[in-house]
Amino acid sequence: MSDRILGVLGGMGPLASAEFMRRLTLLTPAERDQDHVPALLVSDPRVPDRTAARLHGGEDPLPALVRGIRVLEAAGCGAIAIPCNTAHGWYDGMTAATALPIIHIVDAAEADLLRQGVRPGRIGLMGTAGTLAMRLYQDRLESRGWECMVPTPEEMASHVSPAIAQVKANDITGAYAPLAEIAGRLMARGATAVVLGCTEIPLGIDAGPVLPFPVTDTIAALARASIAWAKA
Amino acid sequence: MSDRILGVLGGMGPLASAEFMRRLTLLTPAERDQDHVPALLVSDPRVPDRTAARLHGGEDPLPALVRGIRVLEAAGCGAIAIPCNTAHGWYDGMTAATALPIIHIVDAAEADLLRQGVRPGRIGLMGTAGTLAMRLYQDRLESRGWECMVPTPEEMASHVSPAIAQVKANDITGAYAPLAEIAGRLMARGATAVVLGCTEIPLGIDAGPVLPFPVTDTIAALARASIAWAKA
Repeated sequence: MSDRILGVLGGMGPLASAEFMRRLTLLTPAERDQDHVPALLVSDPRVPDRTAARLHGGEDPLPALVRGIRVLEAAGCGAIAIPCNTAHGWYDGMTAATALPIIHIVDAAEADLLRQGVRPGRIGLMGTAGTLAMRLYQDRLESRGWECMVPTPEEMASHVSPAIAQVKANDITGAYAPLAEIAGRLMARGATAVVLGCTEIPLGIDAGPVLPFPVTDTIAALARASIAWAKA
Repeated sequence: MSDRILGVLGGMGPLASAEFMRRLTLLTPAERDQDHVPALLVSDPRVPDRTAARLHGGEDPLPALVRGIRVLEAAGCGAIAIPCNTAHGWYDGMTAATALPIIHIVDAAEADLLRQGVRPGRIGLMGTAGTLAMRLYQDRLESRGWECMVPTPEEMASHVSPAIAQVKANDITGAYAPLAEIAGRLMARGATAVVLGCTEIPLGIDAGPVLPFPVTDTIAALARASIAWAKA
């Protein structure tokens, strides 16, 4: 039985957070309730849109993120997981605001690639326009031997961004086809695996046939990293 | 956009809590993150087993339940939902410990029966041995015209209780057959609908073919009642 409480800063979107809690449970070896990881989820969908803040001068989400961190601190959490890739654009601001370690979703994604036997090289990266523009994956992973190929601006506008919005509006099944199409194109351009670097994307991808190539689901990857922390 | 924060006292079991968060999201009419219900989930699987406490003199769960309520209060929640039927055996103790309203899962189940067009009469009731022994449903619903038929002690021991334990140990698919079998038997004995009065049971029932009669999923029922509160 673990007494380390995982803090989950979520609601971005709320379905991804719920799926994170589900994966956290299903990926934990357990025989009974008491074997599972204690966790506190702040599901605050009111956090201002991260991509809008970065690309279009929208409201800064950092104060809302820090407000959630304060709740997790007050409840005695020992670490924080954030099942939203784009929110990691404010990682430095958040770590400056708390003494708690924040499990970085890009590191979790890299660990998941390696777990699947994918070696450093050329990978496909799908994410929000904000995540791609901030180079969250590129700047963290390229020094470690990874090269990230991203969809074209036209593919983002026609396929990826609308599909992410569909998931946030609860249209999961409708998001499958456009997301699977772009993942397939990235493989055709030479990727050895595709990172689903927005937590709405695996929700859409899970709604249809399994993709015939290695894929890193950043919800599951963050859940694995969180369980490793809880059981350490 | 709602500013009412829903408190969720969960972890009993953790998969049921995650599924509650998923239903809370999917049942909310939404176009974007900011349309969803802000919520705080305390997922504390360390809460002592409720059935063991009631039937076998196990540790009292009330102190752990109240500890979770304090976290929800401190974070500014306006009401509490508890996606665990058996924990409602401590409903009076919890309401005595907090000024926040606690949405009763049995009332949510009744509202869901009526929503489906099931009229007061003879219904099947499945739940933990603790929930059945405490007469949580019977005492609350019988004055309103409902008559609850429950599995036999032999059926509880051979089918229902082991299936609930399977779900808590992450064996969802294995739980379907025994649970579906008992639900069917309750219908054959004259029930007009079956209430899945333990939040592990709908997880197992959802893992197989849809049952050909009215069923109340208490996870979804509690989510509907919670959304009604948040949007009121």
